[in-house]
Amino acid sequence: MSKYSSCLEACQECAVACQNCLYQMAGMESSNDCPKCCIECAEICEQAVRVLARDSRYAEQYCQLCAEICDWCAEQCGEHDHEHCKKCAEACRECAEECRKMVGAAA
Amino acid sequence: MSKYSSCLEACQECAVACQNCLYQMAGMESSNDCPKCCIECAEICEQAVRVLARDSRYAEQYCQLCAEICDWCAEQCGEHDHEHCKKCAEACRECAEECRKMVGAAA
Amino acid sequence: MSKYSSCLEACQECAVACQNCLYQMAGMESSNDCPKCCIECAEICEQAVRVLARDSRYAEQYCQLCAEICDWCAEQCGEHDHEHCKKCAEACRECAEECRKMVGAAA
Amino acid sequence: MSKYSSCLEACQECAVACQNCLYQMAGMESSNDCPKCCIECAEICEQAVRVLARDSRYAEQYCQLCAEICDWCAEQCGEHDHEHCKKCAEACRECAEECRKMVGAAA
Repeated sequence: MSKYSSCLEACQECAVACQNCLYQMAGMESSNDCPKCCIECAEICEQAVRVLARDSRYAEQYCQLCAEICDWCAEQCGEHDHEHCKKCAEACRECAEECRKMVGAAA
Repeated sequence: MSKYSSCLEACQECAVACQNCLYQMAGMESSNDCPKCCIECAEICEQAVRVLARDSRYAEQYCQLCAEICDWCAEQCGEHDHEHCKKCAEACRECAEECRKMVGAAA
Repeated sequence: MSKYSSCLEACQECAVACQNCLYQMAGMESSNDCPKCCIECAEICEQAVRVLARDSRYAEQYCQLCAEICDWCAEQCGEHDHEHCKKCAEACRECAEECRKMVGAAA
Repeated sequence: MSKYSSCLEACQECAVACQNCLYQMAGMESSNDCPKCCIECAEICEQAVRVLARDSRYAEQYCQLCAEICDWCAEQCGEHDHEHCKKCAEACRECAEECRKMVGAAA
């Protein structure tokens, strides 16, 4: 449906992983910026899905910001041993990579 | 990740199909409530994805509303011959079915 | 702009209060469902704003759910002494009341 | 609640004006990119509200993009004579100005 379907799918998965990590962490003490980063990351991934679904003229700018926020979230969640944090970090790494590919292809 | 992964995936696909149909229809004259229905349907599908990703206590209520809005959108887009409208109607029908299964299983 | 401007404004304020409370609580241990409730409440308030802005046929259903989620969030945040929790609980109480008025007027 | 309350309020109003303009234009033939621009503009304004409500580290980047999208939406809706288009264009101009002030103050 979109020209950038692998990027769109990575953003969908990352949004879900971040929502899950956020909800499991909510109410728990944290040693770092997780789950603050999951709030930011879920939102930009959800927005990237929308603009990719529409082949919007703003897709590239959102994907660039998405890659940046995913890097931060991958780093933070990657320091935690919870299963949901590890899954979230992994999804963020894949999403950042796909977003950078998308930005490179669109340039 | 979620207990209701087939419902979650149907909502993800329907949200994308609705965003696409909405954007292609925007600025075109329409014989019916498409693309108004796509605006409503994209939003409830995106919200259903979030609550399913979190196994939220509100998942059932959102999925019930999602099935209702999907029915309307499937009916409206189903009356149009554009490729994006047909894809949207089909995604809505599948999403409505999955949401009703989810509500039945949660009850 | 909307027929229900006082309800719309209460939803806008509640969404902001919930986002603020959520972010300040993220990473802190909690004695109850705050800030989980703030995630749910921010989302339904944001969605209520959208449907009220459009005078959507689904405004009433969303406002009904919004009142219910606001009640939960007011109760949870109301048990905490942080300034942001007290503000959030107060915004939730006002929003629940406005949503119930809206549903009554629309019925 | 936020350091940037006048920017936050301008984004709230612009999101509402865009949702209204989008819904009224949906299904009508358009001479230009309205209401496509309203879809993009509503989303970035809603996102700007969230990050401003949280005093997020990404507030500046979102507000910069928000100003850019508001400029486009003001230009497009400004070419139409409908009351909802004129209101939308006006809200976009105010929001763009507030977002640029915010970015300048944060820099």
